[in-house]
Amino acid sequence: MNIYDIAKMAGVSIATVSRVVNGSDKVSEKTKRRVMEVIEKEGYTPNVFAQGLGLNTMHTAGILVPDISDLYMSSAISFLEEGLRNHGYNCILGCSGFRQESMAQHVQMLLSKKIDGLILVGSAYAGNGASERETDYIREAAAQVPVFVINGAVQGENVFSAVCGDREAMREVTRALLRRGRKRILFLTDSESYSAREKMAGYEEALTEAGRPVLGELKLKLRNRIHATRDLLLQYRNLDFDAVVATDDGMAVGAVKYAAARGLSIPEDLNIVGYNNSSLAVACEPELTSIDNRTEEICRETVDLFMRTLRGETVPEKHFSVSCRIVKRNTTDF
Amino acid sequence: MNIYDIAKMAGVSIATVSRVVNGSDKVSEKTKRRVMEVIEKEGYTPNVFAQGLGLNTMHTAGILVPDISDLYMSSAISFLEEGLRNHGYNCILGCSGFRQESMAQHVQMLLSKKIDGLILVGSAYAGNGASERETDYIREAAAQVPVFVINGAVQGENVFSAVCGDREAMREVTRALLRRGRKRILFLTDSESYSAREKMAGYEEALTEAGRPVLGELKLKLRNRIHATRDLLLQYRNLDFDAVVATDDGMAVGAVKYAAARGLSIPEDLNIVGYNNSSLAVACEPELTSIDNRTEEICRETVDLFMRTLRGETVPEKHFSVSCRIVKRNTTDF
Repeated sequence: MNIYDIAKMAGVSIATVSRVVNGSDKVSEKTKRRVMEVIEKEGYTPNVFAQGLGLNTMHTAGILVPDISDLYMSSAISFLEEGLRNHGYNCILGCSGFRQESMAQHVQMLLSKKIDGLILVGSAYAGNGASERETDYIREAAAQVPVFVINGAVQGENVFSAVCGDREAMREVTRALLRRGRKRILFLTDSESYSAREKMAGYEEALTEAGRPVLGELKLKLRNRIHATRDLLLQYRNLDFDAVVATDDGMAVGAVKYAAARGLSIPEDLNIVGYNNSSLAVACEPELTSIDNRTEEICRETVDLFMRTLRGETVPEKHFSVSCRIVKRNTTDF
Repeated sequence: MNIYDIAKMAGVSIATVSRVVNGSDKVSEKTKRRVMEVIEKEGYTPNVFAQGLGLNTMHTAGILVPDISDLYMSSAISFLEEGLRNHGYNCILGCSGFRQESMAQHVQMLLSKKIDGLILVGSAYAGNGASERETDYIREAAAQVPVFVINGAVQGENVFSAVCGDREAMREVTRALLRRGRKRILFLTDSESYSAREKMAGYEEALTEAGRPVLGELKLKLRNRIHATRDLLLQYRNLDFDAVVATDDGMAVGAVKYAAARGLSIPEDLNIVGYNNSSLAVACEPELTSIDNRTEEICRETVDLFMRTLRGETVPEKHFSVSCRIVKRNTTDF
């Protein structure tokens, strides 16, 4: 028995159930009566209503992350935790790893902890694009509590998501590199997540609109480690490239180290663009041009959405997107 | 009613209570009977016994950290989570910030989540040395579940701790710098935590044993940010120093940036040593000599101790220490 069952039995959407429970006046008296009858008959007060009813809530958000040692994810958690704490909410966190089965199992674990809502950090939760069914576990969780996906778009009732415009940002930097005369732009990624796919799509779009071919040899998948990236690039002795775009700063810093090892000048011989604008971008020399994916804003918006949803307010947009920002430093000449 | 009460009523230590409940044969029949009588009379099965009795356990560890965006802490959590998961344990995490009141409150929050044991990551939990009472909240928590402190030593029944030899490591690098003729060694720290105090003590011991004065102007407290450190050092125009040791890599990378801005050669004009051997040490140029505080080993030992304690095994050492390792790279000439 959950909010879906109530909605189904009353013949309304879960948003309507939520509004009724939270006393919104946007619902007709007739609908309100029908919903309340079902709720009373079933004697049920699920978590999602708890805040509005002042019942049964622990004021706790569940946050799930695949890899907490990742700079992007740990900074997102830090922002979320601070925002939720300011609203009097505690956080409990789980680390799920990247395996589908483990992600679904950790969602269940967090649901068992009496959380009021679930936040999934990182586009790994949005599946790798092979099948819609990969994200069924998210819709199932959303039958119990509202679910918020950060950096990945998932459709479903009671599912909300926030993404930054990775595709547009990568298209924009690729365009800028092409405009400055770069001919062979290497794309480095460590993942096939939703956001990695968006970034690759933006890279390919910029090439295609400029009438350039998308070359398989210029798209490398590798580990997001500085020295591992440097060493791999050193092994590709006959691979010609005059620019690098990477889906994370770690690989981009590896490209900076590669340039030093090969005696290449940055940015003259090689332009390099990282992603996530992490502390690595500032630590390296020359300092790295990187794409700021606005973690702080995305987390702030998510906390706002979380609070409004728990209060039963009508949320105009279930999926929102913020624009990335290109932070120009010394590894590019645009 | 908790394990302390049982122990007190039976007139034995909590270790003995734990052994009795877990069927250890190291307890005399007489003691065993006395303890079981108290437990049966009180009808009580606290969390700490749950594993042994197969009752009431959620197989969940609570982990508390002051700042999850800190590289050291997030990597520790990652190791702990992996180790505990391998033993079938889930983790719930809290972020407490650094304020005493908030740390104590977050401990209570985690205890309310039916955890089997509590792991506190980071020496901030061990107090700033002003008073023993700062850590009372840890001993109070230990009355409910075993508590494990990582990177800080706290005394108390049912309290375990793991530290790395920060004092010895800092003494060793300071000695090495002095041996190579460095005369004015700047000590940079962002904290007054247990481990920061240990590091400073090691620095001072090396100076004192070499007959050098400990100078107040050569000990700076600042924010652990790369550019902030560089800019601060640039402002100290008349501060003379030929080496820098820092309690975290972020500040040491800031010193590398400072040297570049001043046109100083590394390591000729300036030796620099960081701490934590994070990815920042590898990202910067020249790459940073840093002290590896063995996070992975400490976390592995802690997980091992956690499991043994929950199984009711006798743990020979409640406090253990591993030695740090100096990772020599290109910012030192020793």
